[in-house]
Amino acid sequence: MTVVSDSVIADAQAFATGLFEALAAATRDPPGITRASYGAGEAKAHAILAEAARGLGMEVTSDAIGTLRMVMPGADRDLPAVAMGSHLDSVPHGGNFDGAAGVVIGLAIASALRAAGRRPARDLLVMGIRAEEMCWFPAHYLGSRAMFGLMPGDAADTLRRVDTGRTLAEHMVEEGLDPTPIREGRALLDPKRLACFIEPHIEQGPVLVEEGLPVAVVTGIRGSLRYPQARALGAHAHAGAVPRRYRRDAAMATVALLASLDARWAALEESGADLVCTAGILATDPAHHTSTKVPGFLRFSLDIRSMDAALLAELDPWLAAEAARIGAERGVGFDFGPPTHAKPALMDAGLRALLMRCASEAGVPVREMASGAGHDCATFAGMGVPSAMLFLRNANGSHNPDEALDMADVGAALAVLVRAVGERLG
Amino acid sequence: MTVVSDSVIADAQAFATGLFEALAAATRDPPGITRASYGAGEAKAHAILAEAARGLGMEVTSDAIGTLRMVMPGADRDLPAVAMGSHLDSVPHGGNFDGAAGVVIGLAIASALRAAGRRPARDLLVMGIRAEEMCWFPAHYLGSRAMFGLMPGDAADTLRRVDTGRTLAEHMVEEGLDPTPIREGRALLDPKRLACFIEPHIEQGPVLVEEGLPVAVVTGIRGSLRYPQARALGAHAHAGAVPRRYRRDAAMATVALLASLDARWAALEESGADLVCTAGILATDPAHHTSTKVPGFLRFSLDIRSMDAALLAELDPWLAAEAARIGAERGVGFDFGPPTHAKPALMDAGLRALLMRCASEAGVPVREMASGAGHDCATFAGMGVPSAMLFLRNANGSHNPDEALDMADVGAALAVLVRAVGERLG
Repeated sequence: MTVVSDSVIADAQAFATGLFEALAAATRDPPGITRASYGAGEAKAHAILAEAARGLGMEVTSDAIGTLRMVMPGADRDLPAVAMGSHLDSVPHGGNFDGAAGVVIGLAIASALRAAGRRPARDLLVMGIRAEEMCWFPAHYLGSRAMFGLMPGDAADTLRRVDTGRTLAEHMVEEGLDPTPIREGRALLDPKRLACFIEPHIEQGPVLVEEGLPVAVVTGIRGSLRYPQARALGAHAHAGAVPRRYRRDAAMATVALLASLDARWAALEESGADLVCTAGILATDPAHHTSTKVPGFLRFSLDIRSMDAALLAELDPWLAAEAARIGAERGVGFDFGPPTHAKPALMDAGLRALLMRCASEAGVPVREMASGAGHDCATFAGMGVPSAMLFLRNANGSHNPDEALDMADVGAALAVLVRAVGERLG
Repeated sequence: MTVVSDSVIADAQAFATGLFEALAAATRDPPGITRASYGAGEAKAHAILAEAARGLGMEVTSDAIGTLRMVMPGADRDLPAVAMGSHLDSVPHGGNFDGAAGVVIGLAIASALRAAGRRPARDLLVMGIRAEEMCWFPAHYLGSRAMFGLMPGDAADTLRRVDTGRTLAEHMVEEGLDPTPIREGRALLDPKRLACFIEPHIEQGPVLVEEGLPVAVVTGIRGSLRYPQARALGAHAHAGAVPRRYRRDAAMATVALLASLDARWAALEESGADLVCTAGILATDPAHHTSTKVPGFLRFSLDIRSMDAALLAELDPWLAAEAARIGAERGVGFDFGPPTHAKPALMDAGLRALLMRCASEAGVPVREMASGAGHDCATFAGMGVPSAMLFLRNANGSHNPDEALDMADVGAALAVLVRAVGERLG
């Protein structure tokens, strides 16, 4: 076990604080900060982190697609590395911590180990991953999947950045990078070269704030059952003149379906299941709706997430059956549209136990919790790399300028991680 | 009782058919017909009806605001008249029968009585009312309320036609009419001069088509409890990362409220209550909604109608209490916005009984039913004039080019009305 002194942790926390300040100053875009995927803000963040890593004596390189690799060499370079990191892009006018916290904390761990005079057996690899935020290029985990050769071959030339309309390849070339590995589906990193991957990240929900805990160990990344473009099709009719039995009311039918889902959710949660259900979009047709017309059309979305793949698999046909039953009762057809499902990504049991034990030893209050949001860590887990996440308490949600990460909580995370990472480094 | 021969009814039906064809030809605006309130199409309809009335030897005048008055004189001109009629405007690209049917049938009754050689005691007054369709000027029953001096004094100069942006007064002057009576709140017709008012109208719902009946006697015009601009206010949040207990989901809260209303509606209808409930508009915020975000805002409308004023009065505080209960459970505030309520207008019991008896005597299948839509008849009933409506079977709803009134059903309505009107004329 690696135990470092409180003053080393305090110094590492100050180091992290300085990096956060430098990142905010370089990428400010009021309100908030902007670090577009394969854009100027992301490049500035990479430059700041790279310079800090060089200051720690780390080996700094970039792979062909721009993944920043910062290595504190171990005694035996042939052993698989302990990897940490996260992404360095942000949403437009976002907060300073979503993504960046994972890379900054990785470097702060390196600085603490160095200050403690540790020379581990294995390499510590801290990664600044590209292009995780889907608001720029509409693809999940673009940077980490490209790194493992997992993107479809045409992605470089068909994915267009939402703000510019230009292709991923064009943006990569502009940044001095090479889209060829994406076109060829070529992996730039062998997962066997990684002993494990640990991604620190701010919590994007309110649980840690509400419960007064600085950190949480993530049990896994929820899978999803998603129908972003569902529709209910009934018939428009006069709101006063058509009796209940002759209506084909798309809105009331959808209300019945969502109320049924909501009741099932409440019952499942009561019995301990992990589940969240969201209808983020509900919209009668603006070209035809009015308060005095029975709506014959409703567009809606469904986003259902759980750690339990079996539960998701069970809810899908249940939803279809409910829609068929309610639709038949009410003369309304449901068309759920194309699904975009994702499987849950379970975090490594050994790493989870290690992080819980290190938190206990460091005297840091902690809980386990599922991640409802997706993270690059899911890509690593999918490649068979033992993976884990540590959530840090964060107020006001993420993807907005009000993300609020207390530097004292960074200190708490460092106290946990320096033990856990030090132990895995050998 | 006035009994006229089948051949007289057949001739009156043919007369009505010819008028409908002339109206359609003169106001065609594919798809459908257009007769804007105080616009060219409405004026053409008035000219066609006036000419037909003159052909029947009726006295034809217009009041200052353009109400067409066509009188078959009775023996005693001092007796209050039996009035019939409806409006002659239409929605844009509407159908040929909504409104016009009531005026055409009024003239066809006059033609039948004339052909039968009847010289009644009272005047038969057939009215072509102006501006009933709210899509042009946003005011209920504009033409009939102005005729009775019921419009607010500023209406002539503040109401603007939706398509032109010009005021009611400007459009009236353009048609050679005089807005002064509206400005002065001056009545142009003394309700005491009317013995009764009967408005034939196409049914705007599917009940008569579904039940295979040519006509229905209307029990009354449903009153309404309306909140066209209601809002649910919660908080936007991450769809995956925020557990159920921390959500303030505006959409799911509204789903719960509407599901509760829907259940109450079903139970009330089961127990025999007259009620229809519509949420015509449901809309998360297009500027912020997405399928992966818990919606913090939802705009919606409520339109609840019943013949039972006491039920509407009871549902209003019940809705407020449900919204408060559900809002408190779910951290969502409901703001129902300004109401636009209307009281039910009951049809005259004596006229209803007369119409039912005449239908029976004429061998015309009939039922009683509430009108869910508003009609000028409500203005007459509100002025204390004994009022009634006869609905005619109509396929495909109203306010669209596909309104379908079978001329055989016009014949059935004439067989009923010639008896009833003849009896009231004395």
